[in-house]
Amino acid sequence: MSELSGAELQFIFNTFSFLLWGALVMWMAAGFTMLESGSVRTKNASVICLKNIGLYAIAGMAYYVIGYNLMYVDVGSLIGSFSFFRSPSADELALLAGAEGAREIVVATDYAVMSDWFFQMVFVATAGSIVSGALAERVRLWSFFVFTLVLTAFIYPIVGAWTWGGGWLGAMGFQDFAGSSIVHCTGGAAALAGALVVGPRRHKFRTDGTVTSTPPSNVPVVTLGVFILWFGWFGFNGGSQLALGGAIDVLAMAHVLVNTNLAAAAGTIAAIAVSRPILGRVDLLAGLNGAIAGLVSITAGPDITTHYWAIAIGAVGGVICTASMKLLERLKVDDVVGAVPAHLFAGVWGTLATVIAAGADIVTQLLGVLSITGFAFGTSWVVWRVLEKTMGVRVSQKVEEMGQDVAELGIDAYPEFVLMPEPE
Amino acid sequence: MSELSGAELQFIFNTFSFLLWGALVMWMAAGFTMLESGSVRTKNASVICLKNIGLYAIAGMAYYVIGYNLMYVDVGSLIGSFSFFRSPSADELALLAGAEGAREIVVATDYAVMSDWFFQMVFVATAGSIVSGALAERVRLWSFFVFTLVLTAFIYPIVGAWTWGGGWLGAMGFQDFAGSSIVHCTGGAAALAGALVVGPRRHKFRTDGTVTSTPPSNVPVVTLGVFILWFGWFGFNGGSQLALGGAIDVLAMAHVLVNTNLAAAAGTIAAIAVSRPILGRVDLLAGLNGAIAGLVSITAGPDITTHYWAIAIGAVGGVICTASMKLLERLKVDDVVGAVPAHLFAGVWGTLATVIAAGADIVTQLLGVLSITGFAFGTSWVVWRVLEKTMGVRVSQKVEEMGQDVAELGIDAYPEFVLMPEPE
Amino acid sequence: MSELSGAELQFIFNTFSFLLWGALVMWMAAGFTMLESGSVRTKNASVICLKNIGLYAIAGMAYYVIGYNLMYVDVGSLIGSFSFFRSPSADELALLAGAEGAREIVVATDYAVMSDWFFQMVFVATAGSIVSGALAERVRLWSFFVFTLVLTAFIYPIVGAWTWGGGWLGAMGFQDFAGSSIVHCTGGAAALAGALVVGPRRHKFRTDGTVTSTPPSNVPVVTLGVFILWFGWFGFNGGSQLALGGAIDVLAMAHVLVNTNLAAAAGTIAAIAVSRPILGRVDLLAGLNGAIAGLVSITAGPDITTHYWAIAIGAVGGVICTASMKLLERLKVDDVVGAVPAHLFAGVWGTLATVIAAGADIVTQLLGVLSITGFAFGTSWVVWRVLEKTMGVRVSQKVEEMGQDVAELGIDAYPEFVLMPEPE
Repeated sequence: MSELSGAELQFIFNTFSFLLWGALVMWMAAGFTMLESGSVRTKNASVICLKNIGLYAIAGMAYYVIGYNLMYVDVGSLIGSFSFFRSPSADELALLAGAEGAREIVVATDYAVMSDWFFQMVFVATAGSIVSGALAERVRLWSFFVFTLVLTAFIYPIVGAWTWGGGWLGAMGFQDFAGSSIVHCTGGAAALAGALVVGPRRHKFRTDGTVTSTPPSNVPVVTLGVFILWFGWFGFNGGSQLALGGAIDVLAMAHVLVNTNLAAAAGTIAAIAVSRPILGRVDLLAGLNGAIAGLVSITAGPDITTHYWAIAIGAVGGVICTASMKLLERLKVDDVVGAVPAHLFAGVWGTLATVIAAGADIVTQLLGVLSITGFAFGTSWVVWRVLEKTMGVRVSQKVEEMGQDVAELGIDAYPEFVLMPEPE
Repeated sequence: MSELSGAELQFIFNTFSFLLWGALVMWMAAGFTMLESGSVRTKNASVICLKNIGLYAIAGMAYYVIGYNLMYVDVGSLIGSFSFFRSPSADELALLAGAEGAREIVVATDYAVMSDWFFQMVFVATAGSIVSGALAERVRLWSFFVFTLVLTAFIYPIVGAWTWGGGWLGAMGFQDFAGSSIVHCTGGAAALAGALVVGPRRHKFRTDGTVTSTPPSNVPVVTLGVFILWFGWFGFNGGSQLALGGAIDVLAMAHVLVNTNLAAAAGTIAAIAVSRPILGRVDLLAGLNGAIAGLVSITAGPDITTHYWAIAIGAVGGVICTASMKLLERLKVDDVVGAVPAHLFAGVWGTLATVIAAGADIVTQLLGVLSITGFAFGTSWVVWRVLEKTMGVRVSQKVEEMGQDVAELGIDAYPEFVLMPEPE
Repeated sequence: MSELSGAELQFIFNTFSFLLWGALVMWMAAGFTMLESGSVRTKNASVICLKNIGLYAIAGMAYYVIGYNLMYVDVGSLIGSFSFFRSPSADELALLAGAEGAREIVVATDYAVMSDWFFQMVFVATAGSIVSGALAERVRLWSFFVFTLVLTAFIYPIVGAWTWGGGWLGAMGFQDFAGSSIVHCTGGAAALAGALVVGPRRHKFRTDGTVTSTPPSNVPVVTLGVFILWFGWFGFNGGSQLALGGAIDVLAMAHVLVNTNLAAAAGTIAAIAVSRPILGRVDLLAGLNGAIAGLVSITAGPDITTHYWAIAIGAVGGVICTASMKLLERLKVDDVVGAVPAHLFAGVWGTLATVIAAGADIVTQLLGVLSITGFAFGTSWVVWRVLEKTMGVRVSQKVEEMGQDVAELGIDAYPEFVLMPEPE
């Protein structure tokens, strides 16, 4: 057994970090699925499961075929390379094929090419997951899949090229460690655009100005989803250190995980605390969404904020989320799971909070969050409108009333359970 | 790329081990939530979800603000420092800020300060999770949260100071590798004290001496919870090696994980096997609780017992748990999920089993388990009584009959499902 | 702190890889449990939970007592050693006991003995999990447990001895990286034999030739199960590199994880796409099973196939699975969860696909898959027949109609929920 060089050790640590934390981020796809399928009414719970496993599959494929290259390969100011597929490097293939001589060249590259692809791929899937919840119960299955394809092959990768890919925002020093803006505002803005184009669920906003309550159909499943997201976020933020091969990397990772947990805890507590004044009752769902908002808020700067600030950022995120759930209702925007408050609004807050908490440049942060949100919203809105004119984005009134499970899939989520007749 | 020194490598390995296994222990919070929300009646399933996500948030905050310092900083014989907040060391902050010169000093400290905090924090949350299940369906939400705060800021940290913090029990050589006593007896004793003060659910023990059966409302969710706990326990026990930077550490970790799995398997099988004679039927819930009891039992000494002994310890733990579920019923103690049998009784057994199985000192082990259980029970009892006199600990008869979900939260767990009317 | 030798570092990395990925594979047991308990009718959901936690416990014990040695110790051509228990090496025990001098000898062995046991143990449990789903709703609890014991103590270990243990198939160069054949065909063939002996559920195949639809009772839980499996598969395939101590290992692991995800995504998409022509509707369950089939298909060669081929292999696996679900119905084989299509048929495909995709030897691959499937099917069939003649394998008509939950356990899965009366 030969000695391991420092370069080889770093290659092992860095690559392993991508793989392991990446696997944990993949698990977040299950979290979104549970959160969403427990939040929708029983008559749409199967379709939302299909949308979620479908979107994870589509995102992985789209990012493999086009997205990654557009985001990371030969990035100019605006976009990377429009080319297809991502493969290990020639040296890596040689080493895999047994050419020991390639080892030195490979280990000098810091990490395996495809381990980075894997880690980035689970992020694009996260952006896609944000959309499905907001549009649940009325968006057409196939239109949603087409949108997912565009989002994960083009919209998200272009935002990514500007920033992590080294484009114009990256060059300006835009601070967004694990993607408060890049992932969560992008996903949240895409969700908002979709919610506006697709429109609210029938009867959600009544003509007399009142709002129909549409409580989650399966609260333990929603709660499970949030715990999965919290757990997976350790991979999301921890892995975003992008390295593990030195003391400073693992030290930063520890800092990041602690901040992540503190912000989520603070978001939960703050959201529960303000839920009574804002929503009129101590609210579990506000608390759950507050946890997510805390997580989203800290995601822009868990590496550079102190633990005190992490608590403050998370708490404010939780309050913003709770308040904006109310606001969206006022604005008659129907977001079934509160994805826009928890991802878009908390993401904006988190991105800007780095200015206050850690001295990030206010102009750059504002420019970043505005351009990312604006671009994601605008392109998404166009795509949703095109889909509306072509495939249609909304199920028929009859399908909506029957539920998509029976009408689109023929698979009830809970076929043996006797359910309440829906109120007229 | 420079070479990595042995010290730096150990720093990376040790810190990463804390972070990774700690994240897995956090996941146990989801396990308790599922176990408990599936075990309670549907009318209380939302509140138990809120209690669990709330307790995890509160525990993390309390342990950050006070608990950790009380447990680990400047520990005398009885308690550590009464001071606030926990931060990275000055050298770590310097290194994070880019002062490369701090690296050597930092890596000589073996692991990142906050990675240890993270790992210890998820343990205190576990102790809190044990309580919520036992008291489900009748304890007030806010009283429970206040108790959680006291438990995680003071009671658990003081027990921890005596032992892992280096206090009097630690100095005597008390053997409790990952906390059969420190975590599970503490949590179990706090749960027992609460169960006694809060009292059984109405109608649980009828005046004619019979016991009302209150079966779990959602068995697959309970089972999921137990699988999550089993999975998470690899982090709980494996991470408790507290190091990964040498062959001996990873070797011990392998030993620990194998013992953990063997004891859980033996606990499951033994509990199923004795469930028919003891409970009158082959019992899934006994088997599930037996798995937990096996896990709790091995937790005191997975590092020093042989694999044969791990099986024996786990099996006896499973039997004790099953038998004491029956015993508690006889004593008219209402523990909704069997937390006292699985955590307190199996924890006592596991702590003492190290005497038989691995030659731990019987006096020390007895003293340890008695003082920990006594202290946790006594202080918890006082806190519960104070809460009873002030906030009240028990929901009103009306709330209990309606269910806490509707009465305290206004959120049904399964609002669309038609449920059985409750028997009079 | 002394420097760490290359050998010690490799020992740490390799052992840690076994433990960590092994823990993730254990989590797959929860995935099968959710998949199965959501797939069966509510009246059998508790029993399937008991079967699953029981089988995981039994598998771990059987493999500890006998299985591992039969598979890996002193393997001749056909079987290993018929001896009992597995323990750390004497040198390891010495090192654990503090004999520093043993360190050099220990680290030269590459990994901790019991870490390998742990990783292999979770694989045998997987094979057992495959069987429970296929036979759900009518196989007797105790007969199933006895079969599990034989499968995990003898049948699977013998197949394993031929291959990974270094027996005749291994010597021929049979390619089966993580067990498309060894784990999934073995489990799938055992399931098929059981399904044939136990027979279909009453009324599943009506005398008029039509098939009674038995949709899953809890779709979100099924979906959760599939996500757990997908997540756990990163451990299943990634850990099967069996080493992490060199750049080439972690590079291969990255390749394996990417292929695993691509194949699963392709399997999902392909299965959804062909579900309409084959099954008459866009089918969530086909998509979910397609994900599993994609995962099984790539498992034989994720290390040696390109990413393009991984996509193709997974997609074909998804199509085979969907088509053969239909085929089994035609043949009146009642496989409740589609375990035979997803594990046996996709496993055969995956094993043979390495010939096309990566130049594996066609004769060896054919011989391997035939002998493994034939042996597993034949021995399983004999065991099931013996069980039929002795304990009985099938519950009575009355128990089947009442449901095993009430009749065998006395524990309803969802006791408070009002359920549909079953159609005559």
